[in-house]
Amino acid sequence: MKNRIHINDVAARDGFQIEAEFVPTGDKIALIDALSSTGLAKIEATSFTSPKAIPNLRDAADVMAGIRRAPGVAYVALIPNEKGVERALACGTDELNFVMSASDSHGRANLHMSAEQSLERFARMVDLAAGADATTNASISTAFGCPFEGDVAPERVLEITARIAGLGIDGVTLCDTTGMANPRQVSDLCRAVREQHPGLDLTLHLHNTRGMGLANALAGWQVGVTRFDAALGGLGGCPFAPGATGNVCTEDLVHMFEQMGVDTGVDLDALLAVASTLPDIVGHAVPGQVVKAGTSQRRYALPAAAG
Amino acid sequence: MKNRIHINDVAARDGFQIEAEFVPTGDKIALIDALSSTGLAKIEATSFTSPKAIPNLRDAADVMAGIRRAPGVAYVALIPNEKGVERALACGTDELNFVMSASDSHGRANLHMSAEQSLERFARMVDLAAGADATTNASISTAFGCPFEGDVAPERVLEITARIAGLGIDGVTLCDTTGMANPRQVSDLCRAVREQHPGLDLTLHLHNTRGMGLANALAGWQVGVTRFDAALGGLGGCPFAPGATGNVCTEDLVHMFEQMGVDTGVDLDALLAVASTLPDIVGHAVPGQVVKAGTSQRRYALPAAAG
Repeated sequence: MKNRIHINDVAARDGFQIEAEFVPTGDKIALIDALSSTGLAKIEATSFTSPKAIPNLRDAADVMAGIRRAPGVAYVALIPNEKGVERALACGTDELNFVMSASDSHGRANLHMSAEQSLERFARMVDLAAGADATTNASISTAFGCPFEGDVAPERVLEITARIAGLGIDGVTLCDTTGMANPRQVSDLCRAVREQHPGLDLTLHLHNTRGMGLANALAGWQVGVTRFDAALGGLGGCPFAPGATGNVCTEDLVHMFEQMGVDTGVDLDALLAVASTLPDIVGHAVPGQVVKAGTSQRRYALPAAAG
Repeated sequence: MKNRIHINDVAARDGFQIEAEFVPTGDKIALIDALSSTGLAKIEATSFTSPKAIPNLRDAADVMAGIRRAPGVAYVALIPNEKGVERALACGTDELNFVMSASDSHGRANLHMSAEQSLERFARMVDLAAGADATTNASISTAFGCPFEGDVAPERVLEITARIAGLGIDGVTLCDTTGMANPRQVSDLCRAVREQHPGLDLTLHLHNTRGMGLANALAGWQVGVTRFDAALGGLGGCPFAPGATGNVCTEDLVHMFEQMGVDTGVDLDALLAVASTLPDIVGHAVPGQVVKAGTSQRRYALPAAAG
């Protein structure tokens, strides 16, 4: 169990993309800039998808152009296709996060592509990115189950991972897109990926839909996972899974690991200060709990009657 | 890691005691009766404390007299003192759950007793219960930290546990009263208690104040804990810790362990049906997530546009 983990905050992408109201570009830039000084390893700032598919992120290029690049922080963008690669590279994106789905029905609903079509496209995207000063990652949606099809065989995810590794992509993210994963499953699949691909950077992308987000993060960490996606405030969800709540909450994740003595690199107080601004930005309460309850270090005054 | 766990639902006690509105006795009885047929091992039905201290549970005797006793379910009551033992035994309570606090300031605020005073009282309570057809348990509040004092040394909790075992009490419950525990701490303390007292029934009582409830349950289970307190809907909290949210949610806990292949003995669908009635009983939304999102088995229709 490693004592240093790296966190990629995806609130500006996975969170804002599903908000009922467009978050103004200036607010996005201000939030990303605020997050940049908290010690996060990466910030997924936007998605270079079709503005028609995700109107909330139609300002991707403006966001990437407007943010301050803090040293030591990698600015990531989600990329579904070749055009996205070109747009992202033109903006100086540090990491291109290709996205596909392990489940064909989810892939077709979300990306209009089967897994095989996505992998063929990844090959062309890798070619396009060759020589550019950007790392590459591939996110596999529904790696722990599909809201339409149900179980996704771990063998399928392992095969897709092998194909991704074969393309020379630097890392893979296993995504529990709609919060179906349980700790045993996370443990088993992450262990297998690490054993088969020790050189591949493995990230876990967890949702807290059924309350298991932090338990799943713990299970992943116990088998050696050191990279986690998380969203400030626990923002996010999936447009095709009504009722699903958000991503695992960044500040709650940082709090748990720091309490356990695991170094996240993040200044929790600074992160909580940023998290406390989120309800005003999105116009509603968010699921994060530590920002409401305070950290485990919080002390209360003795009730007066108790003397 | 054991493949069968036992769950004690404490919603009727730890949940209802802190509600802003008194839950009518008939509603309490109906809820306990509904829970009785879901496969729960135990139900903590009420608390035999002073009606002045906890007015919401002033109907303790009526609740115990009114409920249907389902075979195989142990009906538990929380007991702070000798008078509580007498009242609980008069009602045919199956398990007397003595309560104290590892932290003197919390004990004085909550029970008007230091830990030493509680332990002395426990000795007299054990004498009173001797010969009665009831098992005994001792719950140690603030075992993982005190909202007033901060850290509680594990050595102190281990010493208290040894004293409890020495009194011949059948079990001990380590309570994370205000959700301060983290998985590493849970793992370390539970392992130590199990090593030192293999014959003592060990239960974990967790709160989800900072989102770590299920992660802490997982950590406990990994070191051999098979008994958990939890509250339907995630009801509960602590009157001396404003802002703190509730107990770990029973149906979310059952869901996680069943998904992992661990037998809880509980019929999750039946439990979710009972949980869905809770907001009407208490008059507000509750934190439980599976009842809102559905289980991980839930399937969604493909969006029409996806063909």
